[in-house]
Amino acid sequence: MSEIKIVRNTAPKQKPDENNLVFGKYFTDHMFEMDWNQQQGWHDARIVPYGPLELSPACTCLHYGQETFEGMKAYRNPHGEIYLFRPMENFKRLNRSNERLCIPQIDEEFALKALLELIKMDKDWVPHTEGTSLYIRPFVIGTEPSLGAHSSSEYKFLIIMCPVGAYYATGLNPVSIFVENEYVRAVRGGMGFAKTGGNYAASLKAQDVAAEEGFSQVLWLDGVERKYIEEVGAMNVFFVLGDEVVTPALQGSILPGITRKSVIELLSSWGYKVSERRLSVDELLEAYKKGNFTEMFGSGTAAVISPVGLLRYKDIDMKLSDGKIGELSQRLYDELTGIQWGKCPDPFGWTMKVE
Amino acid sequence: MSEIKIVRNTAPKQKPDENNLVFGKYFTDHMFEMDWNQQQGWHDARIVPYGPLELSPACTCLHYGQETFEGMKAYRNPHGEIYLFRPMENFKRLNRSNERLCIPQIDEEFALKALLELIKMDKDWVPHTEGTSLYIRPFVIGTEPSLGAHSSSEYKFLIIMCPVGAYYATGLNPVSIFVENEYVRAVRGGMGFAKTGGNYAASLKAQDVAAEEGFSQVLWLDGVERKYIEEVGAMNVFFVLGDEVVTPALQGSILPGITRKSVIELLSSWGYKVSERRLSVDELLEAYKKGNFTEMFGSGTAAVISPVGLLRYKDIDMKLSDGKIGELSQRLYDELTGIQWGKCPDPFGWTMKVE
Repeated sequence: MSEIKIVRNTAPKQKPDENNLVFGKYFTDHMFEMDWNQQQGWHDARIVPYGPLELSPACTCLHYGQETFEGMKAYRNPHGEIYLFRPMENFKRLNRSNERLCIPQIDEEFALKALLELIKMDKDWVPHTEGTSLYIRPFVIGTEPSLGAHSSSEYKFLIIMCPVGAYYATGLNPVSIFVENEYVRAVRGGMGFAKTGGNYAASLKAQDVAAEEGFSQVLWLDGVERKYIEEVGAMNVFFVLGDEVVTPALQGSILPGITRKSVIELLSSWGYKVSERRLSVDELLEAYKKGNFTEMFGSGTAAVISPVGLLRYKDIDMKLSDGKIGELSQRLYDELTGIQWGKCPDPFGWTMKVE
Repeated sequence: MSEIKIVRNTAPKQKPDENNLVFGKYFTDHMFEMDWNQQQGWHDARIVPYGPLELSPACTCLHYGQETFEGMKAYRNPHGEIYLFRPMENFKRLNRSNERLCIPQIDEEFALKALLELIKMDKDWVPHTEGTSLYIRPFVIGTEPSLGAHSSSEYKFLIIMCPVGAYYATGLNPVSIFVENEYVRAVRGGMGFAKTGGNYAASLKAQDVAAEEGFSQVLWLDGVERKYIEEVGAMNVFFVLGDEVVTPALQGSILPGITRKSVIELLSSWGYKVSERRLSVDELLEAYKKGNFTEMFGSGTAAVISPVGLLRYKDIDMKLSDGKIGELSQRLYDELTGIQWGKCPDPFGWTMKVE
């Protein structure tokens, strides 16, 4: 299984305009693919031209949601070299998701090797323009061509990649967030900590409602008591409360973000008091009234740091950082993107060069 | 959109042995397919040879679980005629699932028309052997070829069909069920009432554990208090408690089963007191101790009625109906399958002839 077969794309596509990249729409010339079955385990690792999959209409992933994925990025530094950001963290998390979804484990080292190989083949697709990067989507799907409602006996692991622009076209910008009261994304004992389709499917409805009301995303509350802060679907959240920076503790229903982890490590290294703990909406409201809740931001691979200018709970609007970018948000954004794009030193050894 | 284009399969397959049908594995010669986009709505309705789908590796259903489905059956009566059982209930439920998953509504009447057309083309696939039927799987998947985490802008609606054997090879048989304490399938505010992949994905792990311990399925408790009975994943559940037959009320986290509905209607017509209400494990244990909890069964399209001989909660084993088929389970099974296979009168007008 150490061999990766390579089939070169003989009809490479024209690359999209780097100044008008839409997220997740333009794919590179190649993709990585391998298969799993009970007899052979993971086998037939190959890099092939990017193109449609032929799937049985009965296959598990189309009916029973047995699918997991990851999201990560490759960045081009000022010298034109390509770097990844903590890629092993992604493959480790993919395996934790796989475990929850009854999907066989992948060899993390081999997955990284395959990714490096794939990036090298499509290296010209890593964009050069300020703020751009190559988005990488490893994913696993159950492909048994049968309707039995049990874990699949066949799987595919794929990696596809697409050049993406800066998340905020006009630079870092505060967003408005809405605390969701009706719908629930995930619950303790469920699969909220896993990066799997069902969690996103469950959140579409609330996102649509929020968008109609002019909010960019919803903030999820816990499914049991509906009063503790969880996450924002596409990102984890942090709150500056006096001299404490608080983020919800990982208790099974929240995605263990890699940007989240990096933010915690950065803040601690800067001497901040960071708490991973339970945080209720009531505590937030109370702190806001006292002038003690001053800043909020999200963290995630796509936007890196996303400052929040307005948080609405029922009919209460909490305006944060004067509706502007908070001080800490800006500092974290500069530091993290600085490390990612190779403009700052990397004291934690988070980046990995694609040779 | 009233036209259904037909492309006949010129290489029909050999039909499988009716005495050795495996659930969900052998598909008929044709399938129904139509597409949706924002400009045309549902369009290009067609019956085509059963075969693989060409899907973009980036398409929504493979990453974000935007997928809904139904399960229903066609039965051959002793005169060789083909009947459906309450098919409009399935298409109505599909639309309720679609609404929760942000999938566009389908025209229910048109879906039924398409299904009737498809069954007529593959009528020889409806098996003749006692206890067999044609399983029908309508489903919708999001097919936008892009990784944006929002509702898809393109969809496919398909119907595929497969001949299936009797659910219990050796006739109606009591099963053992295990009350699940660790994992949660769905929660109020989630999408438990919808027939969508994520609910099944969330339940795979517990099913695997149960199977290892010799149980056929797990009984789910509510995700909030973890003490109220919900359902068994593949079926709804009923409990005979003294002179009352109890089934959990539909409160958003339970699938509104069509067999469940039919059982309630049948029992009421027979003069039983049927309650749709909250039912805690503690109440069950209490009733069992008093000799008041005498029978339990599941209801679903696949098994119709599934008598439960043993229910385990933590280390307590509740043995029901002496581990045999309960009286009411047998009567309901005989009546329902009698109506479905056209061996009994159909006083409720539940069946629909495929002309």
